[in-house]
Amino acid sequence: MSPDEFEAALRGIGAERYHILHPFHHLLHNGKLSKGQVQAWALNRYYYQANIPAKDASLLARLPTTALRREWRRRIEDHDGDGTQPGGVERWLALTDGLGLDRDYVTSLRGLLPGTRFAVDAYVHFVRERSVLEAIASSLTEMFSTNIIQQRVAGMLRNYDFVSEATLAYFNPRLTQAPQDVDFALAYVKQHADTREKQEQCLAALRFKCDLLWAQLDALHLAYVEPRLVPPGAFRP
Amino acid sequence: MSPDEFEAALRGIGAERYHILHPFHHLLHNGKLSKGQVQAWALNRYYYQANIPAKDASLLARLPTTALRREWRRRIEDHDGDGTQPGGVERWLALTDGLGLDRDYVTSLRGLLPGTRFAVDAYVHFVRERSVLEAIASSLTEMFSTNIIQQRVAGMLRNYDFVSEATLAYFNPRLTQAPQDVDFALAYVKQHADTREKQEQCLAALRFKCDLLWAQLDALHLAYVEPRLVPPGAFRP
Repeated sequence: MSPDEFEAALRGIGAERYHILHPFHHLLHNGKLSKGQVQAWALNRYYYQANIPAKDASLLARLPTTALRREWRRRIEDHDGDGTQPGGVERWLALTDGLGLDRDYVTSLRGLLPGTRFAVDAYVHFVRERSVLEAIASSLTEMFSTNIIQQRVAGMLRNYDFVSEATLAYFNPRLTQAPQDVDFALAYVKQHADTREKQEQCLAALRFKCDLLWAQLDALHLAYVEPRLVPPGAFRP
Repeated sequence: MSPDEFEAALRGIGAERYHILHPFHHLLHNGKLSKGQVQAWALNRYYYQANIPAKDASLLARLPTTALRREWRRRIEDHDGDGTQPGGVERWLALTDGLGLDRDYVTSLRGLLPGTRFAVDAYVHFVRERSVLEAIASSLTEMFSTNIIQQRVAGMLRNYDFVSEATLAYFNPRLTQAPQDVDFALAYVKQHADTREKQEQCLAALRFKCDLLWAQLDALHLAYVEPRLVPPGAFRP
């Protein structure tokens, strides 16, 4: 595939299986969920947010050049903060606070759905074990995230009286951070996937990443929407 | 905890969260599923079966004594066979054959639910990364399996005209293998969990294992029972 055909194939995966297509996403953004269901979403997604800098750190440890490490260090700073500005993890906890969840309960992970844990851990393991190229390709779901973030923030502010611009403060910086991340990662992947085999590995990595985002909404849907099968020990709104 | 109290605590975890309690299990055994739904179960569970000897081999590689390695080598033989007798993986494929699934499709994993993959991979990673004691403790769900196997075989033979004793041949040897496995593993865990902290680690390992069996039925339930949300790319009966 030419670089442009390859990019089109990557974007095609998003059109087919990005979690913006999941019914839970539509319920969330269209005001169809109760506060308890939104709490369940925020509680579970905390585990994903908290593991993003961990997966980035395991990639950072394997990057071969100063320029690459500097780029990936910036990502970790986006999520962990710099000691003066809160990072993404801290801003996510402002969301769970704003939804009335106890912060110690959230960070203890006691109420987490096992399906969330297994999907997120699969991501961390993937980045640790696969090639640098595949690890970077798996970050490319951010190509599709600007749209979902805009839908989410607008829809949630319009539809839920229990969220505010302050509680949704996680998302605003992502609207500028994510495109910056994508510019770098997409250019890297297009340059380094210089055989058909490597291109296929990148496509598979992006499919894998879409699957694990989708699986997180699957677990939420089963437990909290329909048929409301909450696994033993998990959060009950 | 005394060894007897510790064993009671281990058994209590099974009473609370073993997947015999999952609604999908009841539907399966009581004849409430269509052939397509039973196919989905067998197809997904193949991935679990196929990874059991892989997780056992990664534990084998870390065992310190001849006696322990001999015991664990026997388990791998149970699953991989000895070249004359088929092992558990081969017997599972007799089940998927008997249900009319194409063997190449099953082993390609193309139709696998992502939730199955993440749960099974979590088990393999757990056994690879945790202590030998925790890895052995995580195998103790077999304490609870005799009962579920008997229910499953009797219920499926009675309720489905598309299964036979031949297609369910996987399960019979497990009725003698599993108690043998448990005798060894339970004695090992009771002897080596000689502090409260180690006992708690073993209890957490068994809870983790129950959670990943449960999560596999969750994924099947969501996709194939209710609300029938089949993830992109997964098997469609």
